[in-house]
Amino acid sequence: MSTPANSATPLVGIVMGSDSDVGVMQAATNVLKDFQIPYEMTVASAHRSPEKASAFSATARSRGIKVIIAGAGHAAHLAGVLAAHTTLPIIGVPIDSSCLQGLDSLLSTVQMPPGVPVATVSIGKPGAKNAAILAAQILATSDDRMAERLERYKADMAAGVAEKAKKVEALT
Amino acid sequence: MSTPANSATPLVGIVMGSDSDVGVMQAATNVLKDFQIPYEMTVASAHRSPEKASAFSATARSRGIKVIIAGAGHAAHLAGVLAAHTTLPIIGVPIDSSCLQGLDSLLSTVQMPPGVPVATVSIGKPGAKNAAILAAQILATSDDRMAERLERYKADMAAGVAEKAKKVEALT
Amino acid sequence: MSTPANSATPLVGIVMGSDSDVGVMQAATNVLKDFQIPYEMTVASAHRSPEKASAFSATARSRGIKVIIAGAGHAAHLAGVLAAHTTLPIIGVPIDSSCLQGLDSLLSTVQMPPGVPVATVSIGKPGAKNAAILAAQILATSDDRMAERLERYKADMAAGVAEKAKKVEALT
Amino acid sequence: MSTPANSATPLVGIVMGSDSDVGVMQAATNVLKDFQIPYEMTVASAHRSPEKASAFSATARSRGIKVIIAGAGHAAHLAGVLAAHTTLPIIGVPIDSSCLQGLDSLLSTVQMPPGVPVATVSIGKPGAKNAAILAAQILATSDDRMAERLERYKADMAAGVAEKAKKVEALT
Amino acid sequence: MSTPANSATPLVGIVMGSDSDVGVMQAATNVLKDFQIPYEMTVASAHRSPEKASAFSATARSRGIKVIIAGAGHAAHLAGVLAAHTTLPIIGVPIDSSCLQGLDSLLSTVQMPPGVPVATVSIGKPGAKNAAILAAQILATSDDRMAERLERYKADMAAGVAEKAKKVEALT
Amino acid sequence: MSTPANSATPLVGIVMGSDSDVGVMQAATNVLKDFQIPYEMTVASAHRSPEKASAFSATARSRGIKVIIAGAGHAAHLAGVLAAHTTLPIIGVPIDSSCLQGLDSLLSTVQMPPGVPVATVSIGKPGAKNAAILAAQILATSDDRMAERLERYKADMAAGVAEKAKKVEALT
Amino acid sequence: MSTPANSATPLVGIVMGSDSDVGVMQAATNVLKDFQIPYEMTVASAHRSPEKASAFSATARSRGIKVIIAGAGHAAHLAGVLAAHTTLPIIGVPIDSSCLQGLDSLLSTVQMPPGVPVATVSIGKPGAKNAAILAAQILATSDDRMAERLERYKADMAAGVAEKAKKVEALT
Amino acid sequence: MSTPANSATPLVGIVMGSDSDVGVMQAATNVLKDFQIPYEMTVASAHRSPEKASAFSATARSRGIKVIIAGAGHAAHLAGVLAAHTTLPIIGVPIDSSCLQGLDSLLSTVQMPPGVPVATVSIGKPGAKNAAILAAQILATSDDRMAERLERYKADMAAGVAEKAKKVEALT
Repeated sequence: MSTPANSATPLVGIVMGSDSDVGVMQAATNVLKDFQIPYEMTVASAHRSPEKASAFSATARSRGIKVIIAGAGHAAHLAGVLAAHTTLPIIGVPIDSSCLQGLDSLLSTVQMPPGVPVATVSIGKPGAKNAAILAAQILATSDDRMAERLERYKADMAAGVAEKAKKVEALT
Repeated sequence: MSTPANSATPLVGIVMGSDSDVGVMQAATNVLKDFQIPYEMTVASAHRSPEKASAFSATARSRGIKVIIAGAGHAAHLAGVLAAHTTLPIIGVPIDSSCLQGLDSLLSTVQMPPGVPVATVSIGKPGAKNAAILAAQILATSDDRMAERLERYKADMAAGVAEKAKKVEALT
Repeated sequence: MSTPANSATPLVGIVMGSDSDVGVMQAATNVLKDFQIPYEMTVASAHRSPEKASAFSATARSRGIKVIIAGAGHAAHLAGVLAAHTTLPIIGVPIDSSCLQGLDSLLSTVQMPPGVPVATVSIGKPGAKNAAILAAQILATSDDRMAERLERYKADMAAGVAEKAKKVEALT
Repeated sequence: MSTPANSATPLVGIVMGSDSDVGVMQAATNVLKDFQIPYEMTVASAHRSPEKASAFSATARSRGIKVIIAGAGHAAHLAGVLAAHTTLPIIGVPIDSSCLQGLDSLLSTVQMPPGVPVATVSIGKPGAKNAAILAAQILATSDDRMAERLERYKADMAAGVAEKAKKVEALT
Repeated sequence: MSTPANSATPLVGIVMGSDSDVGVMQAATNVLKDFQIPYEMTVASAHRSPEKASAFSATARSRGIKVIIAGAGHAAHLAGVLAAHTTLPIIGVPIDSSCLQGLDSLLSTVQMPPGVPVATVSIGKPGAKNAAILAAQILATSDDRMAERLERYKADMAAGVAEKAKKVEALT
Repeated sequence: MSTPANSATPLVGIVMGSDSDVGVMQAATNVLKDFQIPYEMTVASAHRSPEKASAFSATARSRGIKVIIAGAGHAAHLAGVLAAHTTLPIIGVPIDSSCLQGLDSLLSTVQMPPGVPVATVSIGKPGAKNAAILAAQILATSDDRMAERLERYKADMAAGVAEKAKKVEALT
Repeated sequence: MSTPANSATPLVGIVMGSDSDVGVMQAATNVLKDFQIPYEMTVASAHRSPEKASAFSATARSRGIKVIIAGAGHAAHLAGVLAAHTTLPIIGVPIDSSCLQGLDSLLSTVQMPPGVPVATVSIGKPGAKNAAILAAQILATSDDRMAERLERYKADMAAGVAEKAKKVEALT
Repeated sequence: MSTPANSATPLVGIVMGSDSDVGVMQAATNVLKDFQIPYEMTVASAHRSPEKASAFSATARSRGIKVIIAGAGHAAHLAGVLAAHTTLPIIGVPIDSSCLQGLDSLLSTVQMPPGVPVATVSIGKPGAKNAAILAAQILATSDDRMAERLERYKADMAAGVAEKAKKVEALT
């Protein structure tokens, strides 16, 4: 697995089920960079490379990882399989790569049976972005500087809405 | 894992994600008994006991198993996880144990990404019964006596319909 | 809001949209008690008592809350509304209280637009239980004793499966 | 918030969750202009700018607004959040901006729990147009000239169908 | 059609597609009584008694009706058919009387083509209750006393939540 | 196949995929009796007795049958298979016998590819009743007395609504 | 309404809810021409021109029409509304003109309540083609020459499959 | 039916409902070639050429076929109809050729009633590829060389993931 150059130990591990998911998952890495959260990112399929997926998850805590983000499409088992091998929080991003528009990956990710949760976010790029924000929120439960960054991010969003509102109001 | 008393080496391995699925999966064992197919049956959760699930699957071929039947509900990852660890044919039975009536387990079971198939049958008891018949059909590809049993079973079904038809016709 | 007698400051805040959701949400409190996580629990509707909901969320961090669990049915806006007023992680439990069996509350909870995540778990009681485990996992990112409890819980689950497997194997 | 130049006090307030919804919502403003109904239009997100959304709604009646139209996509909480802060009628337009084609925004908008209604119209541009007509119908309950305009509009629609029918009949 | 004894001219007309819907629609009449809104209520099927349905709608404005509430199940055409014959606002209540749990009636009611809106509320009893509140909101656009009643109703709901919250808090 | 005692040659053939569907399909035979339409009724499964199903259909026209009604659940192939073997109009009744509440049988029945239509009616008993009325409508295209019965039936329905309306009006 | 030049009295009436549906419905007229079935075609909206729709239907039998084909999208009430005003068989073609891909129009067309059937065919162009074949099948119940044409059409389809099969076999 | 030039007796029979499905089904033939499995491929429609479909299936075992793969769209009855006429294992590939994106073909293929299974794989090209792998798995139950090829294929997939992982890791 790779970790960003010059970074501290990765705190977030990003796994995707296929390299074709990378365009979606970069919506997560962009946010992690903004929040200055060191991360590692790799491909591991629950079905085509199950040992790699299990090992990634089973060793994550000891590597210093605190949150795992898993993106997968179709019958998206990746997040659940990772969750089976660790007690770290797993964030699942359902990806709409089949013809069912993400309904299959959403239900496969979110409907985990009792005992093994996956923190599921919305389908596709919006979800990948939100997965990174959620990772920051989890880290912020014990990192006040991260909490401050989140507060600033929230304020910036509100300001962004205000600015866009002006443009729309001008159209009336 | 258990195997039926006095039986030959099991040819079919039945796994269910929870002991609460046993009522559904007995629709499969009833058929296997009728077809005189030795089987073993156990519980292994893709999420709560992933090592057991992987090991069951990874060692199945060497134990003499030829077909695996996996029944699970919710985000039903069991069949897919078993398929990741063996090249034996995996038959998936979606079970309707969540409030979404089996739509979640159906999509989680059938929508496997390219490379790792799961032979999915219908949801619930009808699917469990059909899983056992499908297992018999697979065994029959190299067992002429099994093929004969299947022909007889098919003839009996047609005869059964004819008999029921008479009762319905009498209602007219 | 109430906090359990004799407890330390609550770390988890549970909110439900209606008092009729309490039967579902107690699946969460049972787990929190097992994990010795102090919590508070109340009712606040995004629609019928929006000020209370906003205030609960906006003041949660300063009250010492680290994770919020929100359970709601129908067009379940509660988790999203709470997420709008805090940077704490929000766990959403969709509840199947309408005739659409939780599909409406699932989509209303999980499909958050980019910028404001809700960590969504499965529908109903399994989800409520998983929400509490996820809360423990989040707390464990900075609490090694909690991490140990989670490891023990995971081992117990695997052992529980093994025990149930024996009963099912005996049925063969 | 903006109001159309030279207009009387706005009677209808249009809010959208994102400036990317403006193309859809202009199907509403076109109709309001035809009906000579003064309106104001802005952007306010239930999640990214909740205070603005609440304030827009809470102060609307005192500003002279009689009907609010809210358009939003994904887990569309905007209409419900506005409804929580006013007793004015809220018309919700579900927008299909996620990959689920508006099913998420439809259920998030229409399935409001008892006590806080949202008058939901169809998904996307047809819904935005209908939202404006519905606003006119509401205003017409106490404005006979508006009722006359609606009667004329209805007659024009029937005439339009008749004209188009001729073209189609000519194709036979 | 009947109007409540001793009442003023009905302002709201309630129509249901079948007398079996009356249990659902009484959730609306209970609210109308609370708000002291005179109403009339009848059965008229878009399919089995189309003339009655059309006539009810076409003459409603001249009878003094200001808002129509229509409840129907299956392929619920009633609200749309009423909307075709009047310019009064039509509130549609989808009723879950088929085996598809109201999805058919919801889509049949809400997905009106451009030009003829139906103000759709949630499925079943919660929707019927909300239909009546929405009717009150529409009347309140020109009736300040009604607006006051709505404000009081809203305050009562918030107070009701607060009271129920206490009971739930006591369970912690 | 049976035909009603003392009847003329059957004009309508009713087939159901399983004898467990008879309770639903009797909603059709009740109507056929009311319309004095001689019919025959039997069980033939597209899957368990395909020859019987094909033969029923292939010989129906020569037996004097003018319309076939087929009721089936699950992946309901019966109507389509019958349609493949005749040029008579086939009316399909989807039956909700699986856990998917008839969505599977509806889509399996109605979504016929171009070239081979199935006239699909609503799911379950309402559909079975409507299938019989549709059969009467088809026969009435060349039978004026049948057309008169249908007019009377329609008038009776409207009268029935009027009567039920009175009871509901009395509840106001 | 128009009827094809030089034709006999139209036997089939085609109605569509909007002139934008004409591209879909011409899949029906092409088949009717092949079968030499005189038809008329027009636009009539259940919502925007309800009187025209009702009148078309109510007078159809006396004009000599034997079957009506109705195509509509969104909340497709057209077929149901026509069915309410005639005892002729109505064939409904759901059209996928909203963002819900025809699921709304399918359920709105097929899920008719008991008493008033609509013979629903598949969504879109395949359905329009099938509607015309079904109309021919209905006419053929009293027209042996039409029945012969249908037999020929069926034989031609089988031959067409055989020919296409050769091309595909050549690809092996 | 065609068989590949220079090949041994076909072991797998591929049938598709329409020649327009050939692009999807070649995802299966590509895999069969890789696995050196002789196959035959043809077009046979359950609805337009039912005799051919039945005959293909009924004679398949005697021709030496061991597994049948059936791909079809819309109300996909092909796999079920083939299953009705043979006791060979039938693998069904739902194809998304209607506007419902394969949901209709999935449910029509997988929800087989008890007694007659279809081994259903995922919708579209991923499913066609998986159908061929599943066929290889079935053949491998009595062919050790095929089992070895499958093991190699599985290892290659894992290696492929590892290689792609490196590229994605380099993006971090």
